[in-house]
Amino acid sequence: MAYINQYNSRLDALNFKNMFGNDFFLTWEKSYDEILATYTVADALRWLRENNISTKIFDSGLGISLFRDNSTRTRFSFGSACNLLGLEVQDLDEGKSQIAHGETVRETANMVSFMADVIGIRDDMYIGKGNTYMREVAASVRDGFNDGNLEQCPTLVNLQCDIDHPTQSMADMNHIIHHFGGIDKLKGKKVAMTWAYSPSYGKPLSVPQGVIGLMTRFGMEVSLAHPEGYEVMPEVEAVARKNALLSGGKFTKTNSMAEAFKDADIVYPKSWAPFAAMEKRTNLYGNNDFDGIKALEKELLAQNANHKDWECTEKLMQSTRDGKALYLHCLPADISGVSCKEGEVAASVFDRYRLPLYKQASHKPYIIAAMIFLSKVKCPQETLARLAERNNPRFFG
Amino acid sequence: MAYINQYNSRLDALNFKNMFGNDFFLTWEKSYDEILATYTVADALRWLRENNISTKIFDSGLGISLFRDNSTRTRFSFGSACNLLGLEVQDLDEGKSQIAHGETVRETANMVSFMADVIGIRDDMYIGKGNTYMREVAASVRDGFNDGNLEQCPTLVNLQCDIDHPTQSMADMNHIIHHFGGIDKLKGKKVAMTWAYSPSYGKPLSVPQGVIGLMTRFGMEVSLAHPEGYEVMPEVEAVARKNALLSGGKFTKTNSMAEAFKDADIVYPKSWAPFAAMEKRTNLYGNNDFDGIKALEKELLAQNANHKDWECTEKLMQSTRDGKALYLHCLPADISGVSCKEGEVAASVFDRYRLPLYKQASHKPYIIAAMIFLSKVKCPQETLARLAERNNPRFFG
Amino acid sequence: MAYINQYNSRLDALNFKNMFGNDFFLTWEKSYDEILATYTVADALRWLRENNISTKIFDSGLGISLFRDNSTRTRFSFGSACNLLGLEVQDLDEGKSQIAHGETVRETANMVSFMADVIGIRDDMYIGKGNTYMREVAASVRDGFNDGNLEQCPTLVNLQCDIDHPTQSMADMNHIIHHFGGIDKLKGKKVAMTWAYSPSYGKPLSVPQGVIGLMTRFGMEVSLAHPEGYEVMPEVEAVARKNALLSGGKFTKTNSMAEAFKDADIVYPKSWAPFAAMEKRTNLYGNNDFDGIKALEKELLAQNANHKDWECTEKLMQSTRDGKALYLHCLPADISGVSCKEGEVAASVFDRYRLPLYKQASHKPYIIAAMIFLSKVKCPQETLARLAERNNPRFFG
Repeated sequence: MAYINQYNSRLDALNFKNMFGNDFFLTWEKSYDEILATYTVADALRWLRENNISTKIFDSGLGISLFRDNSTRTRFSFGSACNLLGLEVQDLDEGKSQIAHGETVRETANMVSFMADVIGIRDDMYIGKGNTYMREVAASVRDGFNDGNLEQCPTLVNLQCDIDHPTQSMADMNHIIHHFGGIDKLKGKKVAMTWAYSPSYGKPLSVPQGVIGLMTRFGMEVSLAHPEGYEVMPEVEAVARKNALLSGGKFTKTNSMAEAFKDADIVYPKSWAPFAAMEKRTNLYGNNDFDGIKALEKELLAQNANHKDWECTEKLMQSTRDGKALYLHCLPADISGVSCKEGEVAASVFDRYRLPLYKQASHKPYIIAAMIFLSKVKCPQETLARLAERNNPRFFG
Repeated sequence: MAYINQYNSRLDALNFKNMFGNDFFLTWEKSYDEILATYTVADALRWLRENNISTKIFDSGLGISLFRDNSTRTRFSFGSACNLLGLEVQDLDEGKSQIAHGETVRETANMVSFMADVIGIRDDMYIGKGNTYMREVAASVRDGFNDGNLEQCPTLVNLQCDIDHPTQSMADMNHIIHHFGGIDKLKGKKVAMTWAYSPSYGKPLSVPQGVIGLMTRFGMEVSLAHPEGYEVMPEVEAVARKNALLSGGKFTKTNSMAEAFKDADIVYPKSWAPFAAMEKRTNLYGNNDFDGIKALEKELLAQNANHKDWECTEKLMQSTRDGKALYLHCLPADISGVSCKEGEVAASVFDRYRLPLYKQASHKPYIIAAMIFLSKVKCPQETLARLAERNNPRFFG
Repeated sequence: MAYINQYNSRLDALNFKNMFGNDFFLTWEKSYDEILATYTVADALRWLRENNISTKIFDSGLGISLFRDNSTRTRFSFGSACNLLGLEVQDLDEGKSQIAHGETVRETANMVSFMADVIGIRDDMYIGKGNTYMREVAASVRDGFNDGNLEQCPTLVNLQCDIDHPTQSMADMNHIIHHFGGIDKLKGKKVAMTWAYSPSYGKPLSVPQGVIGLMTRFGMEVSLAHPEGYEVMPEVEAVARKNALLSGGKFTKTNSMAEAFKDADIVYPKSWAPFAAMEKRTNLYGNNDFDGIKALEKELLAQNANHKDWECTEKLMQSTRDGKALYLHCLPADISGVSCKEGEVAASVFDRYRLPLYKQASHKPYIIAAMIFLSKVKCPQETLARLAERNNPRFFG
C-alpha cells in the first residue's frame, strides 16, 4: 500500500484524463503527460505482479486479437497483458471466419465485440492501409457503443501499423528510462536510430518511425541514419522535428552510420525497406501485379546488397559513449554468422547485449496492460490503491 | 436483487425442469415453457452483466468448440457465452488432432471432455449428417458420464446443423420479442421468411428451417416464400404447420415474394439452396464424385440466376405493414452493389436497418449462455438470486 | 478437510523436495518417492475437483503449449490441467510466429515466457532432437529467470519426446495402481509391453520406452516383446534392467507375443517403429533426402507386413492371468476391421475394454496438473489443506 502510493503520487502530478475511453493509435497523438502516465501505470502493474498481488480488474470479458502478419513477441505480450487484467484472448483468424463472404469492417467489428473490452490489431504490410483500417474498426465499435448495440466500447490498441509501432517504441523507451535511472537523466543523451543491412526484404518502417516519433520527446538527440534511398515517411520526420523543438532536444539526419554512432548513448541498428518502395509495393498489390512485385523485390535486394557495410560491429560500438552505448533491437535480429551470413549486427555485440535485450522486451506486456488500464479505468490511482488493498494473491502457493 | 426477482417471478410460472442435464439440438424438441425460460434467463444474465454483476458460475472448466464450417458470429458468441459463465474455450481443430488416425466419435468425444462442461458444434454442410453427428457426440459423453469416466456430463449445444440453427433463431426471436415489447404483443403479427437471390451457392437451409420451426409457436402468421424448386425439408414444414395449429397462428406457403411481404410485420429475406440439391450434393460427396459436384454447382448457380428479382427492395419494403416491417438477417448479407453486384437486399434497405440488425445479433451470446445455464443449474431462480447477492463486479474499475 | 489429510499423510512420508522448481523430462530422473508424490497430488487434485472444490492456485498466468506433432488427448489434457490450476493456455504456433525468421531457441523461449508459469512441449518425431530441444528451452528460461528477465521460471513439462512420454506412462501407471487397489498389490504382477502390427508407419518409441522405464520400478515383471528388428533404445532398456533390479522385479525380453501374454496381469500391445529405422529417418531428414525417406518408409511398411500375426486377439487374451489381463493402450488404437483392415487389436477385445481405456486416459490431466503443482508449490501439503479450507466452489450452481 505504502509503495503503490509512490506510483499514485507520480500520477497525481499528471494530466491524463483524456486517455479514459480512448484508443492508442500513435504515440504522438498522446500528450507528454499521457506518455508518462502509461509508464507509471506499467511500472505499477509490474510492481503489483512482482509482489504477488493480482491485477485482475476484469472478472470476465474478451480481448480480441487480429494479426495480419506473423508475430511472436507482440502476440504473447498482448495475450499476457489481457490475462494479467482478467481478459481472455480470442483470436480473430480471418481464414476461419466468414469475412471472405464480403462483410464490412463495421459489421465484423461489431459482431465480435459484444463482450470485448479491447481489440488489438497488427496490420503493417501496406502503406496507407493498416492505421486506416484500425481507425475504421475503432470508429465502428464506438458507433456500436453509442447506438447501444455494444454494452461496452472496446479499446483499440495498435499492435503495429504502417506508421507506428507504439507498443514497441513505448517498451523500448521505458527500458531506456529504467536503464538510465529516470526521465530526468535523459536530457542530452544521444540516440542513434540507424538502418542496418539485412539479407531479407520489406521489413516494416514502423519501428524506426515509432522510435523517432517518440524518443524525440525527452530532450535527447535522436540521429536518424540510413543510406540514401532509405527514407522513412516524411510526415513522421516532421513529427520528430517538432518534438525535438518542444522538448529541447535535437533531431538530426545523416547518411553515415559512423556519424550516428559517434558518442551515442543508445544505438538501435535495424533494417527497413525504403518508404517509396513500400508505397510502390502497396500499389502493385492493389493491382495484383505479381510480376511487378517480384521485380521490385529483386531490385530492393540488390539495393540492400550495396550496403552490407551497415552492420553494427564491435568497432562501431567502440565509437559510442565510453564504448558502451545501450544496444537496442525489437528482435528477432539478423545476426551475422548466426541467423544469416551477413546481417544487422555482429554476433559478439549481440551476445553481449542479450540480457538487456530481453529486459527491453519484458516491458511490452506491461505497456499494453497500461494502455488498456488507462482507457478502461476512470480513476487509476484509486483502482491501483484498491488492488493493493484487495491483495488477492496472483499465486496461491 | 429486487430487479432479479422480476426474472425469477417469470421463471416461477414456467415448467422447464427437463432442461436440467439436457442438450439443445432443435427448438421444436423444447416445450413452449422451456423456450420462454431460455429467453428469461438470457435477459436475466444480460441484466446482470449490464449492471456489472459477474455471472461466473464456473471457477474453472472448459467449453469445447468444433466448427466444421467457417464462423465469425457464432464462434465469438459461443466464446463470449463460455467466458461470461467462467468457462475457457478450447477449440477442437480436427486438422491438428489425431482424428484422422481413425479414432471413433465416441472416443474423441470422451477424450476431450474430462473437464468439459459444454460442447458446441457447427456441422451444417451435409444433409442427414450434422445433427446425427451431434447426437452421437452427446450420447457418447452421456455414456462416459454414466460409466463414471467423466466427472461431469458436457452439455451439447447445436451451433448450426443441417436441420436447425437454434442459437440463431432463438436470438432472432428474442430480438422480435424485445422489438415489439413482449410476447403478448405478437399474436397475429405476420412474418415473411423468404428466399432471396445470391450470387453464391449452397447456403445452409438451417436458417429458414429454424425460423419456421420456431416462429410459428407464438401465434404469428409465418409465410414461407421461395421460387419453385427451392423447397426446404418437408419434415420441418410439418413441424411449422403443427406449431401454427397449436399456437393459434398460421403457416402459409407461396412462390411470390410480394405476397409474403404484403402487410408483413417482420421480413427475413435470405438465400438458401434447395433441399433436394443439398441432398444430391451430400450423396455426390459421399461418392467422391467431384465432377458431379461441379456440374451441380453450375446448374444451381444458373437456377439461382433465374430469380434475381427476389431482392428485398425499397418497393417491397413499402408494401409491408406501414412500410416499416422489421428487417431481419443472420448476417453477413449479400448487399446489392456493396458485397456483390446483385444480391439479397438493396443497399439502402440494409443501411436503414443496420442498428436493429446488430441488436438482433447481440442476443446470441446470451441465448447460448442461457442454454448452458439451464442445462447445468438445478435451481436457476436460486442461482440467479445468489449471483445478484454475491454481487462480484464484472469490472473492478 | 479430514479427507485431504489422508493425501497429506501419504505425502508426509515421502521425500520430494527436489521437485520444487524443477522440470519433468523423464520419469527415471525422478526418485521413487517423487513418482509417488506425483500420484498422490494427482489423486488429491481429483478428489478436490470431484468434491466441487476449486484447485486454482493461479489467479492469472499463462501455460504455453508447443506441439510439433498432432495431438488430441495430450493437447486437451494439458489444457485441462492448466485450466484446473488457473492458467490460460496460449499455443505457440510456429507457423504464425516469427521463428522462421531465424531466431534462436533461447530467444523465443524467453520472449513468450514473461508471464508463463509452465511450458508443455511435444516434439517426438526425430531421434536425438525432441528431448534435447526441451532441455534447451528449459535451460533458456532458467537463465532468463536467474538473470532477472523473467519474474517467474516456467516449469517444463515433457508432453512426449523421442525418449519418453512421461505424462502418458504416469497416467497409465496410476490407472494400474487404482485398478489393482494400491501400490502394495503390484509386487510380482506381470506386464506385457508388446509390439503390435499396424498398417501405418513410424509410430513413436516413446510409449514403449516410457512404459518399460517406469513400470519396472514397482516390483513387477515387465516383459518387452517385439519381432526381431523392432528394438527400442538400448539406453532405456538399461534403465529398465536397473529399475527391475532395484525394485525386486524383473525385466525380460522376448520375440514372442504369446510368451509375453502368457499369465500377464497387464497387456499393452502397441505398434512402434524400430529405433534403428527412426535414427536413419532422422538422418535422412537432416540431409533433406526425401527419396531416401520414401524408400525407407516403403521398406518399413513391408517389414511391418511380415508381422500381421502380432495382433491382440481373443485367443491371446485367453492366455493371460485368468483370461482377463488389464488391456492398456494410449489411444487411438488400430482396431482390426474398424479403423483398419488388420491392426493392433481385435475389435471384440478393444470393445470389452473401452471403459477401462477411457478411465486410463482420464488420469492424464491430473498427472500433468500434479507435475505443475509440485514444481510450483513450496509446501504442497499446506497448500492442499488451504485449498480445502478455502473451499471455493468449482461450480457455483
